[in-house]
Amino acid sequence: MINQDVLDDLESRQPEILEWLKSFLRIPSVSADPSFEQGMHDARRFLLDRLERMGLANVQLLEGGGEPAVYGEWTGAPGKPTLMIYGHYDVQPADPVELWATPPFEPTVVDGRIYGRGTSDVKGSTTIALEVIASFLAVQGSCPVNVKVFLEGEEETGSPSLRALAARHRELLKADAVISADGGRASPSVPTVNTGARGVAQLEVRLRTASKDLHSGRYGGAVRNAVHEMARLAASLHRADGAVAVDGFYDQALAPTIRQRTDTAAFPYDEAAFFADVQGLAHGEPAYSARERVTLRPSLDVNGLWGGHTGSGLKTIIPCEASAKITARVVEGQGAGEVIQAVLRHLQARCPPGCRLEVVTVGEGSPASTIPPDHPLVRAAEAVLQRETGREAIHVRLGATVPVTSLLKETLGIATLMFGYNLPDEDVHAPNEFFRLKSMRDGAKAWALLLSELGNYPPASFASRELKH
Amino acid sequence: MINQDVLDDLESRQPEILEWLKSFLRIPSVSADPSFEQGMHDARRFLLDRLERMGLANVQLLEGGGEPAVYGEWTGAPGKPTLMIYGHYDVQPADPVELWATPPFEPTVVDGRIYGRGTSDVKGSTTIALEVIASFLAVQGSCPVNVKVFLEGEEETGSPSLRALAARHRELLKADAVISADGGRASPSVPTVNTGARGVAQLEVRLRTASKDLHSGRYGGAVRNAVHEMARLAASLHRADGAVAVDGFYDQALAPTIRQRTDTAAFPYDEAAFFADVQGLAHGEPAYSARERVTLRPSLDVNGLWGGHTGSGLKTIIPCEASAKITARVVEGQGAGEVIQAVLRHLQARCPPGCRLEVVTVGEGSPASTIPPDHPLVRAAEAVLQRETGREAIHVRLGATVPVTSLLKETLGIATLMFGYNLPDEDVHAPNEFFRLKSMRDGAKAWALLLSELGNYPPASFASRELKH
Repeated sequence: MINQDVLDDLESRQPEILEWLKSFLRIPSVSADPSFEQGMHDARRFLLDRLERMGLANVQLLEGGGEPAVYGEWTGAPGKPTLMIYGHYDVQPADPVELWATPPFEPTVVDGRIYGRGTSDVKGSTTIALEVIASFLAVQGSCPVNVKVFLEGEEETGSPSLRALAARHRELLKADAVISADGGRASPSVPTVNTGARGVAQLEVRLRTASKDLHSGRYGGAVRNAVHEMARLAASLHRADGAVAVDGFYDQALAPTIRQRTDTAAFPYDEAAFFADVQGLAHGEPAYSARERVTLRPSLDVNGLWGGHTGSGLKTIIPCEASAKITARVVEGQGAGEVIQAVLRHLQARCPPGCRLEVVTVGEGSPASTIPPDHPLVRAAEAVLQRETGREAIHVRLGATVPVTSLLKETLGIATLMFGYNLPDEDVHAPNEFFRLKSMRDGAKAWALLLSELGNYPPASFASRELKH
Repeated sequence: MINQDVLDDLESRQPEILEWLKSFLRIPSVSADPSFEQGMHDARRFLLDRLERMGLANVQLLEGGGEPAVYGEWTGAPGKPTLMIYGHYDVQPADPVELWATPPFEPTVVDGRIYGRGTSDVKGSTTIALEVIASFLAVQGSCPVNVKVFLEGEEETGSPSLRALAARHRELLKADAVISADGGRASPSVPTVNTGARGVAQLEVRLRTASKDLHSGRYGGAVRNAVHEMARLAASLHRADGAVAVDGFYDQALAPTIRQRTDTAAFPYDEAAFFADVQGLAHGEPAYSARERVTLRPSLDVNGLWGGHTGSGLKTIIPCEASAKITARVVEGQGAGEVIQAVLRHLQARCPPGCRLEVVTVGEGSPASTIPPDHPLVRAAEAVLQRETGREAIHVRLGATVPVTSLLKETLGIATLMFGYNLPDEDVHAPNEFFRLKSMRDGAKAWALLLSELGNYPPASFASRELKH
């Protein structure tokens, strides 16, 4: 049974928590762009200070070779499970900045929403997790479980040094399971438990057809054009119906289970509105619903393509170079690295003789992650949501990627429950990202209940087991 | 017979002329980029001053609604032909600036070449033309012909207001023919007379597939991607062999004449070196040689294409927008506007349902230009080149476009001889553009001889006639 005073404390501290979140959001901690190094540094200082002030022990930065993680722990509940509390302090780049209605790093509350880069992904939910622990410690001097707070700084760049970091600090990070502030809710109205996420892998290639840009008056009609060739390569990646045309792309993907397809169908999902909200055009594998395509099936997108003159005015050149940034989302069964290598082989096989296709970046990313449907993390979450909403939670999967989940599974052998309170429409990775103030309040209560509930499970019950498919 | 003192004066003034050219090159007169407005202004002041100091009359700016042209005249030879002397003071943008070995607007002489934006295109040859007139006037107080110097400021942006300008100043610009400093030589070793140039037309389109960039974790696999669709459109413009795949693209193009193909074959042209010099890859209509493809046949190029995240780092978006800049080079018989409309119809017909294809710019450009092979301009140029080289000149055509040529033909009814001294390998429109100092000297002598030779033709003999095909 939870201590009602903790819930009251969280409720009464909402204004103070919002101010703290705003200060966090003002720090431009963009991990993908080296010019934001100061912002990354400031965010770490800011979090170290908060963890110390709330009474965590062993507060420190953990180095893994890249952006350090922020760490702090409370281990005063012997015999209770030890849970790693995961969040990340880095955010996506804010460009195109000119499309923001309010400055991306000046958080602005309008109509119950707070706008700014990182509000939804994921400083809002990270703040919820931290403040729940703070309330437990402030009100009753203890938590229902042992906690190890672990706040990463490389989530938005694919966690390049997380593996090294986890290996180096294996003893410190030892835990029975992870609760992640990342990986949000699927619906504002229906209770859901997230049982997994797609993985991701990336590739950037550059194609060269000549030693320099050529004047079309002198060469037009006689030479290959790098933009034409790159366009041909990019166009070859998909069939006309939108399914991926790369040989072997789908081969290792596990077919969705009956339960997965049933839960997907049970999830109240307005497919027409899904497209209409963003004026998007339905496309993709004809055998699956849109909801299945974005959660249970892999996908492939060119995230950016460019070559030649892209500035103002006319420049009659034949571009000698064109580039493409590509990412794949992968599902259970697929090796992220194998999938992206298949894409690279596809491009290489279609690159005309003499054209030079260079690999700028190949990131093997991370595989899809999965938590078995009968795991204590899932059962505890179901219990909390049942109590709060009076409804049975539907199992859903996330189409996005939380690389830490599969990485912590791989390095520390523990499962992760994604329990972020962000919602799908909050424009993450895009201009005008926002988070709902109601989610701050609801999330705080649910996190407090979840930690209490998990205190009832013996540590041994968290031992990892494989998903039976 | 030319006055030898004029030739001696041009020879002895070479160092002074080079210094003047350097000052001209230091002025960043980029017409395509509004941020260079001051450079455009400075270039006009600089030229007005030179025309006045050399003794031209009626020196002034001519307005046509865009960048003004610089004008000055000497009309002291009644009964002799009146020749418009054409050049342009605007230059291409210098980007990518980081690929220049020396600053683009700080002219630098290395090994008999002067490097800088505008050296070859076309401040070098414009300087030759002006200084030949200056020497005639300084040495003998007269020119062999009447001259009307006309220096345009919009050549690199497709001369958008030249038509209005020529119409407004029709009386002032009245002349028997034009000699243009633009449209260079085809070879450093073989004498050639240029009898025409390809035309050009442009199109910029933007494709939209959604109201904003979408997160591939939420939408990947379910929606159209603007970059994929634009790649498909761009790839559809050409066949696998490089020929243009647009319906009707070649229909109106006049087949090359026997003389044109014979002259093209006679021109000493190392096709392997043409490609090897720029590491270019041969491509295009299989029925024509590379030299024929770039001078006698039309072509179509995407000059720039972009969409999505093109900066550093990873951004897992599905781009909602992609753009392409396209130009066509057209030949005799083709309407430049009709050709670009055919390209637009091709794209519109292939744009998938629901995708929005917007026309950002459609520039009907200018048609190909042609001067009949028996025109006095051609005969005078042949005579000068025969005297200077001892060899018969080969007729060649320019693959690039000098819009003024067809425009002056259309508006003023007069033919243009292109007599620029730049050479094909001088990296025009690209980084490290240069001009040969030897061309300054040879060009000055040839221009002086040409004006003398043209003084022998009665004005009536220049009357325009159609090319017999």
